[in-house]
Amino acid sequence: MIEKHFLYGFLNPKSVAFYGANNKGSSLASIQIMNLIKSRYDGNIYPIHPKLESVMGFKAYKSISDVPEIPDLVVIVLPAKIVPEIFRECGEKGVKKIILISGGFRELIEDRKNTLTEEINEISRNYGIRFIGPNCLGVFNNYYGDLDEDKAFNTAIWENIKRGNFSIASQSGTLSSHIWFDPENLDLGLSKSLSVGNEANIDIVDCLEYYKDDPYTKVIGLYIEELKRGKQFLALAKQITPHKPILAIYVGGSEAGNRALQSHTGSLAGNAKIYDAVFKESGIIKTEYVQEFLDIALVLSKGVLPKGRRLAIITNSGGPGAMIANNAEKQGLDVPELSNFLQEKLKEVLPVTASFKNPIDCTFDMNLPYFYIDLPEMLMKSGEVDAIIQYGVVGFQDVMDDYLSYERIAKYAEFKSQPSEVMDGLAKKLMLPTIANSKKYSIPILHISPKCFTSPWSKRLRDNGALLFKFWDRPVNCLSKVCDYIEFKQKIS
Amino acid sequence: MIEKHFLYGFLNPKSVAFYGANNKGSSLASIQIMNLIKSRYDGNIYPIHPKLESVMGFKAYKSISDVPEIPDLVVIVLPAKIVPEIFRECGEKGVKKIILISGGFRELIEDRKNTLTEEINEISRNYGIRFIGPNCLGVFNNYYGDLDEDKAFNTAIWENIKRGNFSIASQSGTLSSHIWFDPENLDLGLSKSLSVGNEANIDIVDCLEYYKDDPYTKVIGLYIEELKRGKQFLALAKQITPHKPILAIYVGGSEAGNRALQSHTGSLAGNAKIYDAVFKESGIIKTEYVQEFLDIALVLSKGVLPKGRRLAIITNSGGPGAMIANNAEKQGLDVPELSNFLQEKLKEVLPVTASFKNPIDCTFDMNLPYFYIDLPEMLMKSGEVDAIIQYGVVGFQDVMDDYLSYERIAKYAEFKSQPSEVMDGLAKKLMLPTIANSKKYSIPILHISPKCFTSPWSKRLRDNGALLFKFWDRPVNCLSKVCDYIEFKQKIS
Repeated sequence: MIEKHFLYGFLNPKSVAFYGANNKGSSLASIQIMNLIKSRYDGNIYPIHPKLESVMGFKAYKSISDVPEIPDLVVIVLPAKIVPEIFRECGEKGVKKIILISGGFRELIEDRKNTLTEEINEISRNYGIRFIGPNCLGVFNNYYGDLDEDKAFNTAIWENIKRGNFSIASQSGTLSSHIWFDPENLDLGLSKSLSVGNEANIDIVDCLEYYKDDPYTKVIGLYIEELKRGKQFLALAKQITPHKPILAIYVGGSEAGNRALQSHTGSLAGNAKIYDAVFKESGIIKTEYVQEFLDIALVLSKGVLPKGRRLAIITNSGGPGAMIANNAEKQGLDVPELSNFLQEKLKEVLPVTASFKNPIDCTFDMNLPYFYIDLPEMLMKSGEVDAIIQYGVVGFQDVMDDYLSYERIAKYAEFKSQPSEVMDGLAKKLMLPTIANSKKYSIPILHISPKCFTSPWSKRLRDNGALLFKFWDRPVNCLSKVCDYIEFKQKIS
Repeated sequence: MIEKHFLYGFLNPKSVAFYGANNKGSSLASIQIMNLIKSRYDGNIYPIHPKLESVMGFKAYKSISDVPEIPDLVVIVLPAKIVPEIFRECGEKGVKKIILISGGFRELIEDRKNTLTEEINEISRNYGIRFIGPNCLGVFNNYYGDLDEDKAFNTAIWENIKRGNFSIASQSGTLSSHIWFDPENLDLGLSKSLSVGNEANIDIVDCLEYYKDDPYTKVIGLYIEELKRGKQFLALAKQITPHKPILAIYVGGSEAGNRALQSHTGSLAGNAKIYDAVFKESGIIKTEYVQEFLDIALVLSKGVLPKGRRLAIITNSGGPGAMIANNAEKQGLDVPELSNFLQEKLKEVLPVTASFKNPIDCTFDMNLPYFYIDLPEMLMKSGEVDAIIQYGVVGFQDVMDDYLSYERIAKYAEFKSQPSEVMDGLAKKLMLPTIANSKKYSIPILHISPKCFTSPWSKRLRDNGALLFKFWDRPVNCLSKVCDYIEFKQKIS
């Protein structure tokens, strides 16, 4: 099925020719070819270069006509003016798919009449070429070819990103590529990323169409400056959102924002209210913040969907509990007082200084299996809440190990460091039952640790499936937007 | 002057006695004593313990009466019930200052009548004792004693935090301590932190009084659940804000938030509107987000104050430029179109694909000294803007080094890795002139890199004074609140 969509070939080419790459590494084309090497792409690579004998060890060709096969895909990073000529050469060769990275088309004042764009569009029509761009950053496919986990088809992102079910289509290369430049601090896995640039030929609607049927895409993220095919977008989004959530950043509505758009992709910004109405009608989750975009994607991608807005807060510290409760209500979540029955049950197991109403404040004096497993389970089973935010999953062993690095403490302390395997086992033991319960009851649980996201204990929890945040601001906000989506789904079902 | 304030002794004691510490490391008291060791406190430490001979190598005493001097400070982490007896013992010994960490006083339903609190208050009055707490986490002073950079008086925070001019007073121990648990990802330095807990004897107004005259405090952060002395707070805040900015998190106003407060510090939440009015009248910057709290503190603490709301945006990518512009206007900042004169000057130096209006999009094809130094300087000199946000300070050498770790690329690439000293020198050369200009023109500049905050290049920029953020959401929001403060100052001056 999906193999028949024309975008499949862009994401799974068996051979790629590159215009503009060299061995110096400073050009975007070189970066694209190095990304292919880094992602262990094993198709044929054909650099086209007037002078070089080879690029990154791949034999170079003076012209595409010299290439020994018709490349499945051609990537172009050359000045705009010579692009029509290149398009013609490619057409003559029989090339059907081009990624046009180069800028300098519609977004420049000089080409406001779109003469260059018109020219390449016409050439494309004549030769039956489809192309992505201009002014884009390439594509990324984490499920390329034989589905070998270690391979990807990636011209766009400087990092190897772990697999996931989140796919992006973006009118900004930054949103499709640069937001992935810090993978150590991001647990969101990526399925595909398509940077569509100015959309002279292929647009976000095409991408949506592809993601709709892509078995490796469960959640879709969009960055939109302008919708060229608004009606088709709306119709398609309405088909998709009952099955796969779509989240979108739309930039527009402010004077400076519109000025920025015009010089970016050449878009004439639309009326923000129209976009809001389209998003609302189709159940698209809208955000203005890139961090929130990633957070919502993470929860939708790796978590389970809640059934409603009732939030339970577990904390080992009063302040965050109060802030979470306060912000949750302001963001439209409910933080119900727990039933007397449930409170009595909690009293049996929590320390006397604890509080039970919701937020549930376990205080510092806590027992780990109880904190990580039993307490969330009691709440999930109760039927009184739909989601849980848990603050205070600090790795005390990390803290203790740090104390032990001080001579005096090491000398006199009666506690000791634990072997890595012991801590690995503990994290697994504490986290897996809760993740299983989260799935069983369809109640998402978001964890918060004020320690470094990449600290040993945080890493261990994340490795075992915890959706971890550093502070309590972000999980509250993103949960609220996830609940908006749930309500949309409930309304239309 | 400041030495005469009664809080000075809490922050600079020459000797401290500890109730509740042992060698097991699991109790809050043990953690407090280990924090003192970690922060190289060099005063006398006297553990009081009925059985132990020593704690962490410090000789232990059965009773405070056995201690060979009157300790300047006593820290208590023992069950609430026996605290009055301890207070009496301390009073008899001549102790005048106590930090009462223990919870279980006013915040528990059973003590709603405050009988225990009343009892310790009465004992304190009789003996002339001042105490912090109950239900707090201790204190932190980064300018302790002889001002040796490596020393601090710290019972509260598990990490050694670098020096700064930001001081906190908080009714939540988390806000005074736990938000500092990830120092590698935080450039904000700390001067002092006071966890006031239930404020039975010493409250936030006392802390404000101290910070007002403290030469090492330039910016003040507060976490407030309830103000017990509202009038005094307002009067004092109005005296302080013209000279030192105050930022505050106030939790209250939602039903669940109020329920949380009652079980946390026992506060009866006030009317959120009254608090808003107090903050507005006194020019206190209010935030509901802890990350924003830290961001605003960072900009106020290490940056310069802008003179107005006009923002210039420099970017090497269109999407972030558009998002920054859009969000800035939504947050009440101005993003003025630059004058023709300035645009013409920019045209002379920027690539043809760039845009000049604001956002200024340099595109990928940029020249480093121009991007980091000249462009910001032109804007600062122009008089057309009051603040700058610059996106795209990615360390390309980091990226190239990463590519070079792949065999094929290392074999064929014509670029090479740079020695650490070269990169150190480059970062210094690129960043210092801009930081100097920022001070000279009083125009803050906030930098954004999508790479890891602790990546080599990010670290280098931060080490040279860059105020660095990972995404563009946070700098826009915090700059907007800083501008609100500026307007307040301008209005009252």
